[in-house]
Amino acid sequence: MNSKVIRYVFGKVLLIEGALLLLPILTALIYHEKEGLIYVYVALGAALIGHLFSIKKPDDYVFYFKDGCFMTALCWVALSIVGAMPFYLTKEIPFYIDALFETISGFTTTGASILPRVEDLSHCSLLWRSFTHWIGGMGVLVFLLAIIPMNGGSHMNLMRAESPGPSVGKLVPKAHDTAKILYFIYIGLTVAEIIFLLAGHMPVFDAICISVGTAGTGGFGVRSDSLLSYSPYIQWVVTIFMVLFGVNFNAYFFIIFGKFKKALSMEEVKTYFAVIFGAVAILMFDVIHICGNFFTALRHSSFAVASIITTTGFATLDFNTWSVTSRLILVGLMFIGACAGSTGGGIKVSRFIILIKTVKKELLSYLHPKSIKKIKMDDHPVEHEVVRSTDVYFITFVIIFTASLFIISFDQKDLVTSFTAVAATINNIGPGLELVGPTGNYAFFSPLAKIILMIDMLAGRLELFPLLLLFYPVMWKDLFFSTLREKHKNKNK
Amino acid sequence: MNSKVIRYVFGKVLLIEGALLLLPILTALIYHEKEGLIYVYVALGAALIGHLFSIKKPDDYVFYFKDGCFMTALCWVALSIVGAMPFYLTKEIPFYIDALFETISGFTTTGASILPRVEDLSHCSLLWRSFTHWIGGMGVLVFLLAIIPMNGGSHMNLMRAESPGPSVGKLVPKAHDTAKILYFIYIGLTVAEIIFLLAGHMPVFDAICISVGTAGTGGFGVRSDSLLSYSPYIQWVVTIFMVLFGVNFNAYFFIIFGKFKKALSMEEVKTYFAVIFGAVAILMFDVIHICGNFFTALRHSSFAVASIITTTGFATLDFNTWSVTSRLILVGLMFIGACAGSTGGGIKVSRFIILIKTVKKELLSYLHPKSIKKIKMDDHPVEHEVVRSTDVYFITFVIIFTASLFIISFDQKDLVTSFTAVAATINNIGPGLELVGPTGNYAFFSPLAKIILMIDMLAGRLELFPLLLLFYPVMWKDLFFSTLREKHKNKNK
Repeated sequence: MNSKVIRYVFGKVLLIEGALLLLPILTALIYHEKEGLIYVYVALGAALIGHLFSIKKPDDYVFYFKDGCFMTALCWVALSIVGAMPFYLTKEIPFYIDALFETISGFTTTGASILPRVEDLSHCSLLWRSFTHWIGGMGVLVFLLAIIPMNGGSHMNLMRAESPGPSVGKLVPKAHDTAKILYFIYIGLTVAEIIFLLAGHMPVFDAICISVGTAGTGGFGVRSDSLLSYSPYIQWVVTIFMVLFGVNFNAYFFIIFGKFKKALSMEEVKTYFAVIFGAVAILMFDVIHICGNFFTALRHSSFAVASIITTTGFATLDFNTWSVTSRLILVGLMFIGACAGSTGGGIKVSRFIILIKTVKKELLSYLHPKSIKKIKMDDHPVEHEVVRSTDVYFITFVIIFTASLFIISFDQKDLVTSFTAVAATINNIGPGLELVGPTGNYAFFSPLAKIILMIDMLAGRLELFPLLLLFYPVMWKDLFFSTLREKHKNKNK
Repeated sequence: MNSKVIRYVFGKVLLIEGALLLLPILTALIYHEKEGLIYVYVALGAALIGHLFSIKKPDDYVFYFKDGCFMTALCWVALSIVGAMPFYLTKEIPFYIDALFETISGFTTTGASILPRVEDLSHCSLLWRSFTHWIGGMGVLVFLLAIIPMNGGSHMNLMRAESPGPSVGKLVPKAHDTAKILYFIYIGLTVAEIIFLLAGHMPVFDAICISVGTAGTGGFGVRSDSLLSYSPYIQWVVTIFMVLFGVNFNAYFFIIFGKFKKALSMEEVKTYFAVIFGAVAILMFDVIHICGNFFTALRHSSFAVASIITTTGFATLDFNTWSVTSRLILVGLMFIGACAGSTGGGIKVSRFIILIKTVKKELLSYLHPKSIKKIKMDDHPVEHEVVRSTDVYFITFVIIFTASLFIISFDQKDLVTSFTAVAATINNIGPGLELVGPTGNYAFFSPLAKIILMIDMLAGRLELFPLLLLFYPVMWKDLFFSTLREKHKNKNK
């Protein structure tokens, strides 16, 4: 194991976090909030530790995929532990485990909160809380790749570990440039949303928080009623941007380079929109009874579908009170999730396409035992490796889901609350049904349940395997011995 | 397509059903019930149609696996349509769709009932209802194989289509003999249970009905409270026999031939018992509060675990009132199901073993990308084909499950009722939770929901693919044209 790279990247990630903490500090200055001082301490602490870890550059940047996964999981945990400090130290969230829950929920773009009233938070904490979504949405290691050009050929292993979806393609030959392009699109869309929201007379602070929350498909808002009390125009803007951030970013890449036809013919994107339109159409039947008129119903059902399928988790109406069919559709959308290569969570549309094609192929092989057909996507054959790992991903997902549900059930909450709490965290959505519905929160869970849900959020965001590696003792042993060797070598020099 | 074989087998199956209807007729004679006359008519009708279809032997018995699957699904549907007639004609079940639901529930060994009070049925109908479990448990086509020696090499295709589990092995070189041995074990165990129950002073009629219901892992009882009002001895006997009928019958085969060590070392059987002991241990914590003393709690929790994991569905206590954790464990057991090659339903223990091993292997391949490891079971490598089809089976299962749940939700019953109704039918268990719990029944569902649940029961019993073929128009077209060709050839002769 190349422990030097791990140490170096780990340090850089903390340095970046220290730098990003300047944003809440700036907010505190603007609003004259004393909580800003705490953010200064935490930022300095993170920067100091980060500097110490990354002071010595590694000789080379070569590492295996498993090391990249392990490193990613490690960095995300460290990022969350440090990121939770301000909430705890400002006493805005009195228990550290709750602060950690809130922060992991932020970075993983889940948006599940333990706060009954978000209005009680200071502006700097509200901004930091929403901004964690933005950092987590595109990924902090991808950001690192964008700003630090690494030599050696292992960067793709980092991107593969942190980016959502069954297969990660380089958009351009260099991982460094790919990361830059992704962040360029990401920033561009975020700024566009801020402008559109400001045009609807949304307060600047709200517009920034809601936009970064939409961009990361996170879902933390700045009001307890989420987006209900904003104007219909603002709700529509957020709906559209939620959908846009759930699209595979490759589509935007194609559009930027003028390949409109290629962007429009992407099978995953087409399916994604088809599912959205289908779900809105069915939900309309139900919501129209509640809202009374067609356009209000269209707005609320579009908002709910966009919010859930992109795993954002903002809310206008409390869908907890909708019919069983509507609630089931929303639960279904929770699992489907957004496109691969977007900032959204869930199992991902492309995985479902592959799963359904696998089943179709199997059925056909019963009928024509001798035919050999390859599964195709966007007219390219899908590699056997991808198909198999998709199948395995799905099965692993179900196993982790079931195990989590079992442990959560010790809390003796009703079955629907327990089930949707796990579904809403492992798929990085935020609100579920019943007690964890849009008007509820996660505060009532026991510490054990909270720990499990935190693991689920991280597992969901990092696509299961990287996080599982953290529980594999051999990886820690490897890290320990390889660090020892490094130290030993340095002494001998 | 070899339509002659399909016609012939179809006819023979109806003939067998006609013969099996003699049992309720005999019961009616003993109890002087006028309903027996209806059974005589139906038996004669079935025999007549069966005779007409099977009057001409096919030239050869060669057919493809897909044709075997299609034929199996077709026979099961016909079996159910005819088997439901007596319930309807005696007016004991006034609506034919309900009668069909009850019969499919019987043949598929589900045991989900639409009857609020089973005591209202005549003895002959009660016996027929329970006896459908026994017929469906081992499979009617397997029975056909046991009594009619077919020449040609396609019998295994029939056995593969009708027998539960990821892979069907011949116990002995000839399918004919394998089927015979299976039925020998099946009858032996059933008779043993009857004797043990009679020894506990159970009425003869009850002992027969409960034993055939246990043997098929069905779950129809003869009292509304299922097995609550019988003595603890009887409850223990049923518990033990439920567990025995959930064991892979290969184990009994090994025992008969003196290969005890081989029987005891079967990985699936060991896992099956481990899951049972684990589940009972956890449930004990909960049930001991309800029952007050250790032995009563042990009895009731063992009974519940055995009843659910083997997908039988008998009940002593109403587990609807147990804690969330206990109910979740029971729902989990519903999906795991019994061993492959037993009469039980569910996804099957061996499939779960393969799924978990697949995930383990995938995780290891992240750590050691170059190692090539084969998944092993009972020290034999599992063929790639089996692994893949197990993955696909699981995914198909989830898809059918989700689609069914969606349609059931139109009935607007609560989420837990809807979810467990589908779980309890597709896994062939019977009772679920809430409205479909041990004290409830399925009568309240709409006709559409009942049709979906019937399809689920058949899909679960026939292991998905054979039933799906019934919805594939090409198969029907094939059958039609091949029958036409046959007719045409006959004319030209």
